[in-house]
Amino acid sequence: MRVAIVGATGAVGHELMKVLEQSRLNFSELQLYASPRSAGITLTFKGQQLTVQATPDGPIPADVILASAGGSISQALAPKWVEGGAVVIDNSSAFRYDPEVPLVVPEVNGEAALGHKGIIANPNCTTAIAVVAVAPIHRTYGVKRMIVSTYQATSGAGQKGMDELLEQTRVQLDGGVAGSKEFAHPIPFNVIPHIDVFQDNGYTKEEMKVAWETRKILGDESLQVSCTAVRIPTLRTHSEAITLDLERPATPDQIRDLLAGAPGVEIRDNPQEKLYPMPLTASGKYDVEVGRIRQSLVFDGGIDLFVAGDQLLKGAALNAVQIAEYLQEHGALN
Amino acid sequence: MRVAIVGATGAVGHELMKVLEQSRLNFSELQLYASPRSAGITLTFKGQQLTVQATPDGPIPADVILASAGGSISQALAPKWVEGGAVVIDNSSAFRYDPEVPLVVPEVNGEAALGHKGIIANPNCTTAIAVVAVAPIHRTYGVKRMIVSTYQATSGAGQKGMDELLEQTRVQLDGGVAGSKEFAHPIPFNVIPHIDVFQDNGYTKEEMKVAWETRKILGDESLQVSCTAVRIPTLRTHSEAITLDLERPATPDQIRDLLAGAPGVEIRDNPQEKLYPMPLTASGKYDVEVGRIRQSLVFDGGIDLFVAGDQLLKGAALNAVQIAEYLQEHGALN
Repeated sequence: MRVAIVGATGAVGHELMKVLEQSRLNFSELQLYASPRSAGITLTFKGQQLTVQATPDGPIPADVILASAGGSISQALAPKWVEGGAVVIDNSSAFRYDPEVPLVVPEVNGEAALGHKGIIANPNCTTAIAVVAVAPIHRTYGVKRMIVSTYQATSGAGQKGMDELLEQTRVQLDGGVAGSKEFAHPIPFNVIPHIDVFQDNGYTKEEMKVAWETRKILGDESLQVSCTAVRIPTLRTHSEAITLDLERPATPDQIRDLLAGAPGVEIRDNPQEKLYPMPLTASGKYDVEVGRIRQSLVFDGGIDLFVAGDQLLKGAALNAVQIAEYLQEHGALN
Repeated sequence: MRVAIVGATGAVGHELMKVLEQSRLNFSELQLYASPRSAGITLTFKGQQLTVQATPDGPIPADVILASAGGSISQALAPKWVEGGAVVIDNSSAFRYDPEVPLVVPEVNGEAALGHKGIIANPNCTTAIAVVAVAPIHRTYGVKRMIVSTYQATSGAGQKGMDELLEQTRVQLDGGVAGSKEFAHPIPFNVIPHIDVFQDNGYTKEEMKVAWETRKILGDESLQVSCTAVRIPTLRTHSEAITLDLERPATPDQIRDLLAGAPGVEIRDNPQEKLYPMPLTASGKYDVEVGRIRQSLVFDGGIDLFVAGDQLLKGAALNAVQIAEYLQEHGALN
């Protein structure tokens, strides 16, 4: 089986290669594609040097294409890749809301991937991290309302986002005035409640993605979701404060027991030992850290919790590779 | 009238002096007190050098004492200061929940200050910033439920907190491993969902303060409040994402109109122009920035908003001086 990465030189592409090196996915060949300006670069995979090629304007000779080169490239080229016979696992938002395209987090709705028509969408990073923790709760207790406030890392804007945070922090520490290019405002020591573009209803597209995609992945259009998406000066891992109103009351102990057995979750919830989810400990980790589990003070029998997940991994590269693994294990790949 | 600051050399003490310099409070003398190890330091006030004295173990010869030296010092000494004839405006949490002690944000419940028995409590910074925006909404539309997620600056832990952020960020940028002393974990490029001590119910004291104090200031024990308090790597200004469930439905335009005339509020809510509350713009400002005003997606007729307020100012020093001004303007000071 041949695997291709489109967008191999970006932050997610870098993580895709690292995850594939440790993956149980059985494949014989890895092809790397990126923009023409990155063509010719060599990258190391399992000790071998692979040369990055310019993404062609037509089919790619691969069985699975992991696409992470932005929405406009996916929009234009994914249909051609499918025509060429590949299954496309797309990390952009281009196809996520297409009713013909499954939106998949394997721990939650892996079976949806099996019904694909060529393209499978990888969810928004904030959504992927939240649903790993929320899906088991929804199945057992029925989530009616979900209120999310995010603490999102600069790597959500790719390697350039992280570079800007580091460079501009140094500028400010050296007595200068930090500037901005990747973000709407300087990010060092600041908080920016603005990720992606604003919609007519006053929410950003990032905030609405959490509502739209959580409903689609959980298969429950009645679920009410509200999000405030905020960029903060961290490098990687998105954290989220989540409040849940439940159909059937739950206690924190019940939720801890439930999530202790949930795939993709690491319970990190011992406040007396100063154990709770944090970017410092969640970065580089496959599992999403879940903690601060406590009874809601505004919803009877509701639950508050805090999650931290590496959005380059579970929020992007890891989830994409896990989709491919799921397909292969279910005999749905060549 | 004689004013004294206890805790003059701390971060809030520094802001108290700056705010007093610009205050309309009419006073003839300013005395500065701090720990014995800071005694003898001279600080400049309105161009004059004032010498810091060691806080005595008994009465202080002042009419108004602005105390910001921590809970244990206030607990031990404030009763003696009151016996000596002073009105104490206390920035610690020592007396906030005492039913005999008014907890005051002048824009919201200034009249409560007039009923004091010697001590007036200044609220927790997070609460003070939130209620400036929420109180007018509560009065007009009736807040039933309030869900708050905070983005709190290191200055909540005083000057040492800010110094640790700057120093340890430099350590990390230089390739070292950041450490921690003021915070439970390293704070550079991290998020710590732990401020103050944990309570039996799994909430931190900081989180419960927001619930307890909001109810006391608004005079409504039926108000349901839940908070997630999170320390992030910023220097000053706390930001807060707030979701409100209302008795009477409100539209975002109605809330903008209402808050446009509210004292202590600066509406900063023009997403298309990239205008919303941020530490970068709110730091050093007396007013609390309020923006991202939008219809709740989980409560019919409810409202989501985002606030940013300088917690050394409205969250501490400014509010304390405003209480003294209020007392003087109502003939309640010598």
